[in-house]
Amino acid sequence: MINPEYIGFIAATLTTSAFLPQAFKIWKSKTADGLSLSMYLVMGTGTLSWLFYGLLIESPSVIVANCISFSIILFIITFIIRSKM
Amino acid sequence: MINPEYIGFIAATLTTSAFLPQAFKIWKSKTADGLSLSMYLVMGTGTLSWLFYGLLIESPSVIVANCISFSIILFIITFIIRSKM
Repeated sequence: MINPEYIGFIAATLTTSAFLPQAFKIWKSKTADGLSLSMYLVMGTGTLSWLFYGLLIESPSVIVANCISFSIILFIITFIIRSKM
Repeated sequence: MINPEYIGFIAATLTTSAFLPQAFKIWKSKTADGLSLSMYLVMGTGTLSWLFYGLLIESPSVIVANCISFSIILFIITFIIRSKM
C-alpha cells in the first residue's frame, strides 16, 4: 500500500508550482496588469479554507501545499491592489 | 467539533469556481490566446494527483473538488491545444 502522503506531496508540488510563473512574471515586470483581483481573492479564500481543512483532518500534505499556495496568492493579490492605486 | 467535510466543501466550491471565469471567457471568445499550456498541464497533473490522494484518504470533498477542477482544466487545455493547431 502506498503512503497517501507521498501522492499528496507530489500533488502539492505540482499545484503550487503552477502559480509560480505568474508570480515570477509580476516580480520581473513589477506590474499585475490583466490579472483578475476577484479570481485571486476567491482562490485565496479557498486556499485558506483548504488549509483549515488540512489542519482539521491532520493532513501534512494538504497543510504544506495550502500554506505555500496561500503565500504566493497573497503576494499576487498585494501586487494587483498596489497596481490599482 | 465542526465536521471537516463542511470546511472541505466550502474550500472545494471556492477553489473550483476560481477557474470558471477563465473557462467562460474561452467559451465565449472561442479562443485561448494568452493562456499558458504548460501552466495548465502542470495544474491538470497536480489536480489528478490530488484526486488520487483524495481516493487514498477517502475524503469526499477532496475527491469532488478535484474531479470538477480537473474537468474544467481539461476543457481549457483542449481549447489551448486546438487554438495552436
